[in-house]
Amino acid sequence: MSDGRSRISTDLDFGRDGKQVGYLNVPHSRDSSAWGTLLMPITVIRNGDGPTVLFTGANHGDEYEGPVALSKLARALEPDRIDGRVIILPALNLPAFKAARRLSPIDGKNMNRSFPGSRNGTMTEVIAHYVYTELLPLADVVVDLHSGGKSMTLLPCAVMHRLSDKALEARTMEALQAFGAPAGLVLEELDSEGMLDTAVEEMGKVFLSTELGGGGTLSVPTVAIADRGVRNILSHFGVLEDTPAPSVEPTRLMEVPDTDCYVAAGHDGLFEPLFEVGDSVAAGQPVGRLHFIEDPHRQPVDLPARRAGTLICRRVPSETERGDCVAVIAQDL
Amino acid sequence: MSDGRSRISTDLDFGRDGKQVGYLNVPHSRDSSAWGTLLMPITVIRNGDGPTVLFTGANHGDEYEGPVALSKLARALEPDRIDGRVIILPALNLPAFKAARRLSPIDGKNMNRSFPGSRNGTMTEVIAHYVYTELLPLADVVVDLHSGGKSMTLLPCAVMHRLSDKALEARTMEALQAFGAPAGLVLEELDSEGMLDTAVEEMGKVFLSTELGGGGTLSVPTVAIADRGVRNILSHFGVLEDTPAPSVEPTRLMEVPDTDCYVAAGHDGLFEPLFEVGDSVAAGQPVGRLHFIEDPHRQPVDLPARRAGTLICRRVPSETERGDCVAVIAQDL
Amino acid sequence: MSDGRSRISTDLDFGRDGKQVGYLNVPHSRDSSAWGTLLMPITVIRNGDGPTVLFTGANHGDEYEGPVALSKLARALEPDRIDGRVIILPALNLPAFKAARRLSPIDGKNMNRSFPGSRNGTMTEVIAHYVYTELLPLADVVVDLHSGGKSMTLLPCAVMHRLSDKALEARTMEALQAFGAPAGLVLEELDSEGMLDTAVEEMGKVFLSTELGGGGTLSVPTVAIADRGVRNILSHFGVLEDTPAPSVEPTRLMEVPDTDCYVAAGHDGLFEPLFEVGDSVAAGQPVGRLHFIEDPHRQPVDLPARRAGTLICRRVPSETERGDCVAVIAQDL
Amino acid sequence: MSDGRSRISTDLDFGRDGKQVGYLNVPHSRDSSAWGTLLMPITVIRNGDGPTVLFTGANHGDEYEGPVALSKLARALEPDRIDGRVIILPALNLPAFKAARRLSPIDGKNMNRSFPGSRNGTMTEVIAHYVYTELLPLADVVVDLHSGGKSMTLLPCAVMHRLSDKALEARTMEALQAFGAPAGLVLEELDSEGMLDTAVEEMGKVFLSTELGGGGTLSVPTVAIADRGVRNILSHFGVLEDTPAPSVEPTRLMEVPDTDCYVAAGHDGLFEPLFEVGDSVAAGQPVGRLHFIEDPHRQPVDLPARRAGTLICRRVPSETERGDCVAVIAQDL
Amino acid sequence: MSDGRSRISTDLDFGRDGKQVGYLNVPHSRDSSAWGTLLMPITVIRNGDGPTVLFTGANHGDEYEGPVALSKLARALEPDRIDGRVIILPALNLPAFKAARRLSPIDGKNMNRSFPGSRNGTMTEVIAHYVYTELLPLADVVVDLHSGGKSMTLLPCAVMHRLSDKALEARTMEALQAFGAPAGLVLEELDSEGMLDTAVEEMGKVFLSTELGGGGTLSVPTVAIADRGVRNILSHFGVLEDTPAPSVEPTRLMEVPDTDCYVAAGHDGLFEPLFEVGDSVAAGQPVGRLHFIEDPHRQPVDLPARRAGTLICRRVPSETERGDCVAVIAQDL
Amino acid sequence: MSDGRSRISTDLDFGRDGKQVGYLNVPHSRDSSAWGTLLMPITVIRNGDGPTVLFTGANHGDEYEGPVALSKLARALEPDRIDGRVIILPALNLPAFKAARRLSPIDGKNMNRSFPGSRNGTMTEVIAHYVYTELLPLADVVVDLHSGGKSMTLLPCAVMHRLSDKALEARTMEALQAFGAPAGLVLEELDSEGMLDTAVEEMGKVFLSTELGGGGTLSVPTVAIADRGVRNILSHFGVLEDTPAPSVEPTRLMEVPDTDCYVAAGHDGLFEPLFEVGDSVAAGQPVGRLHFIEDPHRQPVDLPARRAGTLICRRVPSETERGDCVAVIAQDL
Repeated sequence: MSDGRSRISTDLDFGRDGKQVGYLNVPHSRDSSAWGTLLMPITVIRNGDGPTVLFTGANHGDEYEGPVALSKLARALEPDRIDGRVIILPALNLPAFKAARRLSPIDGKNMNRSFPGSRNGTMTEVIAHYVYTELLPLADVVVDLHSGGKSMTLLPCAVMHRLSDKALEARTMEALQAFGAPAGLVLEELDSEGMLDTAVEEMGKVFLSTELGGGGTLSVPTVAIADRGVRNILSHFGVLEDTPAPSVEPTRLMEVPDTDCYVAAGHDGLFEPLFEVGDSVAAGQPVGRLHFIEDPHRQPVDLPARRAGTLICRRVPSETERGDCVAVIAQDL
Repeated sequence: MSDGRSRISTDLDFGRDGKQVGYLNVPHSRDSSAWGTLLMPITVIRNGDGPTVLFTGANHGDEYEGPVALSKLARALEPDRIDGRVIILPALNLPAFKAARRLSPIDGKNMNRSFPGSRNGTMTEVIAHYVYTELLPLADVVVDLHSGGKSMTLLPCAVMHRLSDKALEARTMEALQAFGAPAGLVLEELDSEGMLDTAVEEMGKVFLSTELGGGGTLSVPTVAIADRGVRNILSHFGVLEDTPAPSVEPTRLMEVPDTDCYVAAGHDGLFEPLFEVGDSVAAGQPVGRLHFIEDPHRQPVDLPARRAGTLICRRVPSETERGDCVAVIAQDL
Repeated sequence: MSDGRSRISTDLDFGRDGKQVGYLNVPHSRDSSAWGTLLMPITVIRNGDGPTVLFTGANHGDEYEGPVALSKLARALEPDRIDGRVIILPALNLPAFKAARRLSPIDGKNMNRSFPGSRNGTMTEVIAHYVYTELLPLADVVVDLHSGGKSMTLLPCAVMHRLSDKALEARTMEALQAFGAPAGLVLEELDSEGMLDTAVEEMGKVFLSTELGGGGTLSVPTVAIADRGVRNILSHFGVLEDTPAPSVEPTRLMEVPDTDCYVAAGHDGLFEPLFEVGDSVAAGQPVGRLHFIEDPHRQPVDLPARRAGTLICRRVPSETERGDCVAVIAQDL
Repeated sequence: MSDGRSRISTDLDFGRDGKQVGYLNVPHSRDSSAWGTLLMPITVIRNGDGPTVLFTGANHGDEYEGPVALSKLARALEPDRIDGRVIILPALNLPAFKAARRLSPIDGKNMNRSFPGSRNGTMTEVIAHYVYTELLPLADVVVDLHSGGKSMTLLPCAVMHRLSDKALEARTMEALQAFGAPAGLVLEELDSEGMLDTAVEEMGKVFLSTELGGGGTLSVPTVAIADRGVRNILSHFGVLEDTPAPSVEPTRLMEVPDTDCYVAAGHDGLFEPLFEVGDSVAAGQPVGRLHFIEDPHRQPVDLPARRAGTLICRRVPSETERGDCVAVIAQDL
Repeated sequence: MSDGRSRISTDLDFGRDGKQVGYLNVPHSRDSSAWGTLLMPITVIRNGDGPTVLFTGANHGDEYEGPVALSKLARALEPDRIDGRVIILPALNLPAFKAARRLSPIDGKNMNRSFPGSRNGTMTEVIAHYVYTELLPLADVVVDLHSGGKSMTLLPCAVMHRLSDKALEARTMEALQAFGAPAGLVLEELDSEGMLDTAVEEMGKVFLSTELGGGGTLSVPTVAIADRGVRNILSHFGVLEDTPAPSVEPTRLMEVPDTDCYVAAGHDGLFEPLFEVGDSVAAGQPVGRLHFIEDPHRQPVDLPARRAGTLICRRVPSETERGDCVAVIAQDL
Repeated sequence: MSDGRSRISTDLDFGRDGKQVGYLNVPHSRDSSAWGTLLMPITVIRNGDGPTVLFTGANHGDEYEGPVALSKLARALEPDRIDGRVIILPALNLPAFKAARRLSPIDGKNMNRSFPGSRNGTMTEVIAHYVYTELLPLADVVVDLHSGGKSMTLLPCAVMHRLSDKALEARTMEALQAFGAPAGLVLEELDSEGMLDTAVEEMGKVFLSTELGGGGTLSVPTVAIADRGVRNILSHFGVLEDTPAPSVEPTRLMEVPDTDCYVAAGHDGLFEPLFEVGDSVAAGQPVGRLHFIEDPHRQPVDLPARRAGTLICRRVPSETERGDCVAVIAQDL
């Protein structure tokens, strides 16, 4: 396969000062449009040679705080108020976003397992390849706004990884705290291959992610966290010349030490939570219960926590399949 | 068409004392099973000649407090603790429940617009016809547990209608207050044809409904309201010989006076709520906003409340179509 | 609704002597053909004023002995060999047949619950209405060839009903024995509303059905039974002037006395039969077993016969849903 | 079933002078929106007590000249230029139009076989019922703009029926000629039950239809015919006080005398036309040919005209099923 | 992955003189046929050692002039009339052709971006690999007959590329003019990776393509162009010993100099063309317009040409998505 | 792409003595479960250092003797009865098994063409990669239980390949005969790339497969063959310390010498078999016939055997597509 330049084109000039609002043109030949194009919205605001921050939303198509906060930011931000460059992609996996699904309906792929992508691959891979080869090299900092999506809801938090480059880890921790989410999650990613996170970190750049609510809905407080967080990041890196954001509560740092923190359903059933996000759970306590409504003779099954800690995530849809994650427990760092 | 007896059969004997756990056998010939049967779970507990309470859940298949609370009740209730009869159908629209959808995947029908049903009709109509002809005549009180379903979330409430039979209305109001939900909604149903509610009310029996949360998920507090409410109803009507339920806050009575209380989306877009359920809204204030993420040049559109009051319902899925209800406002009675 | 004549037309003249091979033209406006027509194959062979036998196949679209035996008969039969009239519809539910499904893919309906049909109804109802209003009045005898379809396999048999008109029942029994299938099933249909059977019987005409194998496949012996049976019927009623068919074994008469003869699956699972069609089963013996392959901790469940007798039917697809019929037991008459 | 007033509501006041642009609110509860509404665009322009003309488009959802010409008309028409009332429904079968299909994706129904509709029926029936009970009584003249849809293309023409009320037929013929299409088709509808046409004609009102191109596309000339025709009709009935439309060629009157004018495919195959719309065809000449590309050993099959005349319609999609209409031949009146 | 020989087999012997009509056997194991085979029709006609011309149709499955003209050619051509070898594949992407879709329904792939294919890849890749490894080496000239497909219609033309090998370009230009289409398009393909075109050109062989109409239909004139063109090509290369084809108009040579020649829709809407194929357009003139029928308050949007020239292509389906190409403008060479 | 260790994990310790029943945890992020896991049942029974036998079922998801016999074996086998290790995977392609389909519904792939798999590939490839990298290295013998699946039925047989390693071939032949199926098929696989068979054989290990019935159903005799066969294999390799299985008929050895033994349908049609599995067929005899029920004018087409022998396989579903295999003929070795 060729490793030439991406087939994605754009009328925007990333090196130009000023504000440009437009599209990435992603070729998308299909039955209903032989020479169709997917138009991915992008906004670039630049003023001089300060640092470049790349914001992405809808890496998973059913996570909405990112697209909304980033669309607002793209409309609001003017070049004369910044020093540096801000690149905003509110809907990274646009086909998934249009379908209101986690994964792309075109190829069934998870954008966040598709990096570094492929020029001649499927739609998701083609987008990942463009981001990897064209946008990441321009960026100093990448902030990828996730939420729990339709299947999960989380304690709103910013997320970073333990890194072997300790200087980069320290800078990332500063960014995480600057974001100003109620909680900060420091992850030891067991298998990070294919993630945007990994692609950025391996380039030695600051990468920050978030998990802001979920359930395929937006809420007033989680949108506020996202709105404030993206501006805080721009201030932190000196891109936004605003007065500093109003002081927020310090971020509570947490970790998910091992896979015992995940509680999975052992059967198909109807999931009843016994704790809500933010509650403290003791080891052995059932965090939820599976009901078998169709079989009136069958007893419900409890789903115990294997570790004590704070419930930071629970499943949203009641209907649950064997193997689905129903809860995640974190511990203070 | 014939108006003979329902084709649905059961091994249960509604006139027998004791506890019977079993199924309604609904004939369901289909491609994968020529002589298939849909087994609808049902529990009957009877002790003497006291009143009969019929409980139904999952009238809409994506509303879960009902099925869970009623399954628990069916397991827990023993005949020697009651005086009368309790009939429990935890999943009235079982095909919709199995599909985790509001409407039946078999015929696309809304169970709550299908009464009095039809012996030779579609699956939903056949079930409605059985309930109408076989179960309603046995009942003195019918409680139908709804929630908001996958598309809406509501302030947890019990629901009743204004009735022309004022004595029945008064008895219903007592039942509503006995249920013990935080709120009580008194509706002037504009077009109630086809509803289970109407079918029961026209027989001169007490009918109570609920709206308990929504979003296609269960929550710890809404399950607790349902668990407590069904027992409160049994105590209120003298069926459950328990000590009375622990005193709960009095129910706040509300109404939705007219269609101006509903806020609808005027465009396809991404819905951002600006108020949460339970918040007070002033007339003219936007209760939410539609974003057009795919079109970075298009401004969001505000969705103003036409009436002041309390937001008792909002849309859950962010993706929204023209005409979707995004909020409902109620006023104190 | 109008009760005018059917919209189905044909170039064939049922009153004309000779052999006519053609179509019923069923209007079928659809997205891909605004003025489309469904062409239902039909053959009419007539010679003088002898009795009229109407043969139908694929009343359910996944039952194949009928279509094959009737297509052969339609090609082979010449007017100079008969005395009377033979009308052959090899594929009554043509849309279901084309889709290789039991029910019509157009309206999801079971043809054999759609009589007397409706002029302005759905596709299945429109066909039933034509048969009811145009073909049944022409017929003296109706033979409707069924098999088990994709979900069931049966001991090959001819089938008739207990009738209140005892003279008609006797004539039907003679026809059943003349058909020459290995077995003959005499059914007390509990709920026969909507069946072609009922429509014919209520007109006081001889109606015979069959169940010949199944599993959505053809077999050498069951095709032979069908081939021979349709000619035997024509001989029996004096329509075919052939030498009589070679003597066959006498038909073993059986009945299915009550619903205890049906064995249903109580759970979703993988069905393992423990008896084959034709085997003798004692009451209480498990006729099959449900396995739960996905859950290695769960024990299989036995499915016991509630009555002794001969297994005349078992489920074919291993994957089985709660409520599916897995076996039917018959007793000698 | 109830025969009460339609559940469809609107903020528009049909009796008010001036121009009102808004929606019919069609209740549409569905899985993704429990209390959803289908918003059907409608425009009413009224000035005094002149006659009322009702225009409808997209009776079939894949016919586009109507929606476009009527949207333009609705935007352009101002009350001070008219005398009377114009009611414009650019997309009568809105769900079909949104899906770009002939039939409604919600219930699979053909709007033009669904009149007089039903209050409690399916979506298509509910819309038909509203039109029948609320709009037709207001109208003096109804013009329903059709095209060939995705499967057919036609010689652009206005269409009327032979009527038993000869005075009404004469007035309709005048309207047909006033419309100014290149051709005028006078049909003897064999089975008109359920059509909007019939509903209007039976009320003794002028009903005019059109067939303007097709193939699921718009063309410059057919849009021009529609744009001009709707204004000509308004002028003809004295509603539009414009100077008369520039003189157009007189309409060529044609008829389709019997079903021999229709040519149908006898097999599944790939349709190659041998004549285009407007060409003269002799009886016996093949109007097209079916190819069997997948079977290189099979010869193509010619599809001969059974009558001489002008080809006024041919099938568009090459892929063709047995029974599909591939051509219609008309004769000059 | 292995790079062994293709799994596709055939009974045809490409080296044998005479005419052979048969199939390529493409292994196609699937749910409904464990050991199924896709039978791709192929015809080989050979007489001695003259040049080999390979004709392919239905590279995209909804383009029909190729399959029809090539099926006719395959039936008509006899070895004694030729000098050399003609290999005819009327339906290159047979699964897409059977589904009447541009792309393969099996793997969603575009055949014309799948070269050189892969032995162990998906169905489309496996076919491309066979053509690349087994057929292209046999060919001196490849003619791949395209049309606009269901979404586009084009001015009928033959198509070639600017080539770095100028001698090959000159020979290709001679072939293009010999084909005898009304127009000839000379393309500077920006990104030709994966195309059959490129695969052939890189082997130093003459490659000619066409665009003949579209809209998923056939027309009398475009079929005639294809019929004549394929014979002209055979004559031009000395394979067909016919008298030369009757003189045709010289081909008008055109080019599409840059991406400004493409006009795309900026919104979802209903596309109304303002010019037809073959019309001259001035820079800045709107070539079409997007209507928003569902929103009666929203004005249509014009879609202006960015360059002057001749409209050689326009979108067919009125329903249009953001990013769809609605028109292409070419300029005389 | 990385070639690191599989992302599939398990709590089981393959090196531990005793019986462990659990799951392979296959990461399966999807729209309905962001952090979902597919739980593949696995049982490991170990006692000391004897040989390891790996059993797999449902390599194709619609083949059921394997899953049932292996689930029984996994429940019945206790460590104190064995010497060595038995690893049991009753449902290798679990997603296909859950969907009751041959191929995986997730990626459409054939598990038995997906070896050696890929760490970062699709679901089927990820499972194959785990088996290849983690389980095959542990095994001395691999037995993969196939049946005919939904589309075919076979003479019950064990299957092995001709191998270049003649010592391995001899040991495999001994295992084949030990299995005790009525027939043994020795195949010269023409294209074995991607098969589990090949993966094992290339490691120099004994690989045995079976074909036990089919039609997507289980039968009493084929389950018995599977139950007995898996125990016979364990006894043969000294793993099971049972008394030897009761003597069975010697296995009849057969081969399928070339592709002329396969009979394929040349048209779409309805397949009527003229021979059953186990019957002797002469060369030239029709083994079946294709009927064209929809076209009453078209004659059936015979499908002749090209070779004499025993029919060991025939198609099950009557509906048949061009290219489908309808019969396979084998010859005694």
